[in-house]
Amino acid sequence: MVKVKVMRAVGERNDAIAREIREELARKGIRAVNLMSSPGSGKTALLEKTFAHFAPSHPAAVIVGDPFTTRDAERLERAGGLAFQLNTEGSCHLTAPLVRAALDGLDLSGVKLLFIENIGNLICPASWDLGESAKAVLLSVAEGADKVEKYRKAFMIAHTVLITKSDLAPSCDFDLDYAREGIAALNPRARILTVSAKTGEGMEEWYGWLREMVL
Amino acid sequence: MVKVKVMRAVGERNDAIAREIREELARKGIRAVNLMSSPGSGKTALLEKTFAHFAPSHPAAVIVGDPFTTRDAERLERAGGLAFQLNTEGSCHLTAPLVRAALDGLDLSGVKLLFIENIGNLICPASWDLGESAKAVLLSVAEGADKVEKYRKAFMIAHTVLITKSDLAPSCDFDLDYAREGIAALNPRARILTVSAKTGEGMEEWYGWLREMVL
Repeated sequence: MVKVKVMRAVGERNDAIAREIREELARKGIRAVNLMSSPGSGKTALLEKTFAHFAPSHPAAVIVGDPFTTRDAERLERAGGLAFQLNTEGSCHLTAPLVRAALDGLDLSGVKLLFIENIGNLICPASWDLGESAKAVLLSVAEGADKVEKYRKAFMIAHTVLITKSDLAPSCDFDLDYAREGIAALNPRARILTVSAKTGEGMEEWYGWLREMVL
Repeated sequence: MVKVKVMRAVGERNDAIAREIREELARKGIRAVNLMSSPGSGKTALLEKTFAHFAPSHPAAVIVGDPFTTRDAERLERAGGLAFQLNTEGSCHLTAPLVRAALDGLDLSGVKLLFIENIGNLICPASWDLGESAKAVLLSVAEGADKVEKYRKAFMIAHTVLITKSDLAPSCDFDLDYAREGIAALNPRARILTVSAKTGEGMEEWYGWLREMVL
């Protein structure tokens, strides 16, 4: 019982800070997308292409969460974005206070689009509001279509689901129809996109979704 | 501070139960392997082949953890194993009390090899002792070699690391040498195996490792 109470207090503090972040970003005209997935689903590769696409007219920024290492932030800076790395020292999800700390260290003048690249984990991040405008969940075809039902909470709260690494689909026996039907059954309003950052498949649709949000 | 204290109490209770499980399994001559990885790294596919391989002489059993669904237990029963499904209702890792409950529901007479297929999550399961004899960590080539350093805790505590889905390596630009060096640097004693449940590559080495443990 003590545990539940304490966890609720932590959650309430998180949600209060998330609300403040949401209001602040709205005032500044910035839209934030919280990217969630398993390790290796391709969050960073997706963002590299996205940064390169939007950089000339709409410079984007990213807050990158990793348990350890700063490699992703370096990759994303090279792709033309503004990156802030959060190392959680092994912790399994980002929280609103961590995002708050990152925002205090970022100069977002001119930025309309902010990504929050969450820790690679399809479970815990789904329970934490970070003050984002939208949640995008990635599932790579290498993970298998059965993961939708198993890790259903993430798919239930997603505004957009990106089925990634579509170039690998033929080698992975990935059942795209089964995955799409599973997502639609859990979350009828989710936009489902099939993309490959490598071949470019579906990327225009993804950019279109981001443009709709921002403009 | 309260949170830390409560979490420590939960952890201490877990570890006491894990010790009891370890002693009980040792008395019964059963070796238990805790399998940990991201979602979709191929834990169930690996076990399907392993069950089929060992079934005639050494029937194996598995305790399968999933946030939701019972599909994996059904797959593994079909492959000739004895399976017990734990649904954690969204929780992110197995605990010793959950394994205790599963053991109370399984008749392990004649079983020498018990697998614990943990929740698909490369972070949280690494912090929980389940009373296993050995920990095996899987990393699929589709996830990328940089995941070793990022999710280092799992690799540091592994007795064996299986680099899975090796048949996909050519399509994934997976740097095997980099991954092997990274694992060896974190954990020089870990056995590193490269396997594909699909093509059979490396599976004999995996069976050999299990045989050494059991016999």
